Amino acid sequence: MKKIINDPRNYLNEMLEGIYTAHSEMVTYVNDDFQCLVTKKKKEGKVGLATGGGSGHLPLFLGYVGEGLLDGCSVGDVFQSPSAEQMLEVTKEIDSGSGVLYIYGNYNGDIFNFDMAAEMADFESDIRVESVVAGEDVASAGPASPGEKNTRRGVAGIFFVFKCAGAAADKMMDLDNVKRVAEKAADNVRTMGVALTPCVVPRVGKAGFSIKEDEMEIGMGIHGETGIRRGKLEPADQIVEEMLEKILQDKPYKNGDEVAVLINGLGATTLDEQYIVTRKVNQILNEKGIEVHKYFVGEYATALEMAGVSISLIKLDDELKELIDYPAYTPFFKQ
Amino acid sequence: MKKIINDPRNYLNEMLEGIYTAHSEMVTYVNDDFQCLVTKKKKEGKVGLATGGGSGHLPLFLGYVGEGLLDGCSVGDVFQSPSAEQMLEVTKEIDSGSGVLYIYGNYNGDIFNFDMAAEMADFESDIRVESVVAGEDVASAGPASPGEKNTRRGVAGIFFVFKCAGAAADKMMDLDNVKRVAEKAADNVRTMGVALTPCVVPRVGKAGFSIKEDEMEIGMGIHGETGIRRGKLEPADQIVEEMLEKILQDKPYKNGDEVAVLINGLGATTLDEQYIVTRKVNQILNEKGIEVHKYFVGEYATALEMAGVSISLIKLDDELKELIDYPAYTPFFKQ
Repeated sequence: MKKIINDPRNYLNEMLEGIYTAHSEMVTYVNDDFQCLVTKKKKEGKVGLATGGGSGHLPLFLGYVGEGLLDGCSVGDVFQSPSAEQMLEVTKEIDSGSGVLYIYGNYNGDIFNFDMAAEMADFESDIRVESVVAGEDVASAGPASPGEKNTRRGVAGIFFVFKCAGAAADKMMDLDNVKRVAEKAADNVRTMGVALTPCVVPRVGKAGFSIKEDEMEIGMGIHGETGIRRGKLEPADQIVEEMLEKILQDKPYKNGDEVAVLINGLGATTLDEQYIVTRKVNQILNEKGIEVHKYFVGEYATALEMAGVSISLIKLDDELKELIDYPAYTPFFKQ
Repeated sequence: MKKIINDPRNYLNEMLEGIYTAHSEMVTYVNDDFQCLVTKKKKEGKVGLATGGGSGHLPLFLGYVGEGLLDGCSVGDVFQSPSAEQMLEVTKEIDSGSGVLYIYGNYNGDIFNFDMAAEMADFESDIRVESVVAGEDVASAGPASPGEKNTRRGVAGIFFVFKCAGAAADKMMDLDNVKRVAEKAADNVRTMGVALTPCVVPRVGKAGFSIKEDEMEIGMGIHGETGIRRGKLEPADQIVEEMLEKILQDKPYKNGDEVAVLINGLGATTLDEQYIVTRKVNQILNEKGIEVHKYFVGEYATALEMAGVSISLIKLDDELKELIDYPAYTPFFKQ
């Protein structure tokens, strides 16, 4: 394990102490618990937006707490859900009478704890809580049939759900409408990733799996979940073609659609490579007659020091386009 | 070599095409040459600011071209200087009658070409050009004696020089004053880095050196230049103590000083680790009575996919503090 860390047992708390040190004008914590992060820029009367999940994915999740985005985030140990109690503390802090929306990724531990936190918030504090679960990794499962539960993992595309819901809440929409916007965003997002190397959970100290020097895994999840195929490392253009074809077919995204695109680095992959991917994505979308309203390129949701990228598309209507363009100012995202 | 790329010979152009695709509202190129990047937000009458250098360091250099920062950047192949002709094309485009300041890192190829470009700009186009060379890596050489040339490498701390000069130019200071500010910033910056892994130049296809699995190199440069010592990988706090001690002694930064701090990831190192470093830097500076005005944490100057971090300090007076806080909006830096 080659990391610049101290005792792995202190990894989470020391990382969070660094975040509160560097961004003290923007974020703080409640209940004397570093894992319960809230904005310092609370806007009275606004619907509160909370997320949460395991750490190891910076800037996901807590980097999106700030103006025009989220109000709070509970964070667990690396790749572990925070507790329902931590979620509840954040909920109580960010509610200002208009209710709270939870937006989080489709993982069993998070679902269990967020559901319990929502019940406690209602029961103990009379706070109305609604939830939107993002699950948009097309490699992780087939699409849900009507009436069935979505079993896809939530990955980098959740950024688009945060962005749209965050703007809607900042525009003082009510809880029903913020939830409607978040659901619309979640329905219109698809993601797929490729991994070139594994990552090491600090407490474990070694990778849980390996990828050969000349191999890649298409569709791997951001905790190292198995993808759809492993094979020889191919040229960037070929990798992008395969990933984007699956994404485009799934929604489907068609000629005449307008989209925003997120090219996300998983950790160790250079920005150079992310832009080489961007170039090819743009060529393919141009050929298909799909118009790109905006590109976001960089590390938005990582898997520790994994090498790889993911591609996310969101289909936009006029409402989502305005929300995507709406200003935001957080430790990790400013526009 | 595990990279998401196509033919390494096309690496630079494909990466640049991705940048122009993703940031088409902010940047473009001149002379039909992707390597000559200029802002689309030129402010008439302002002193023009140009930088340049090899690629492989994103967001350095071209990511800082935009409002409140730089106006143009010529970029060479990976770790190679751009040509004097490319620098000249950028210079001609960004001059609007108030002259141009070059700010670049202390490397022989860059110095040679920028000096030639400055002469050509004067001779061919009657553009007054001044230059400030940033060299602040305390591991790379001793401090220059009075009257001697500074032989230190320029690394991540050049961001602070860009930031201060960019704000000064945007406030419509004249060339002499923008140069004065850039020199003051450069004089007050010190940096030191640590590397855990090498990086691979795409055209070469393999690392030019290796660092053992349990080793690190303190003071390594951002092209893999030899540092001051190689040894067993130590806990984060110990690494930070050694690096920061060298930085603090060198300037020196003392009790009562006010500084801004940049914790910079070299490529593959997680934001988590960068914040663990931030925490320790803050503890030491608190103990020493050095006040931190602002932290910048993230990837500001990388060495491809090298694992490691650097720490930069800049001592601030009232003028530099105002310039550090001044708004900026570029593809990679917004505040």
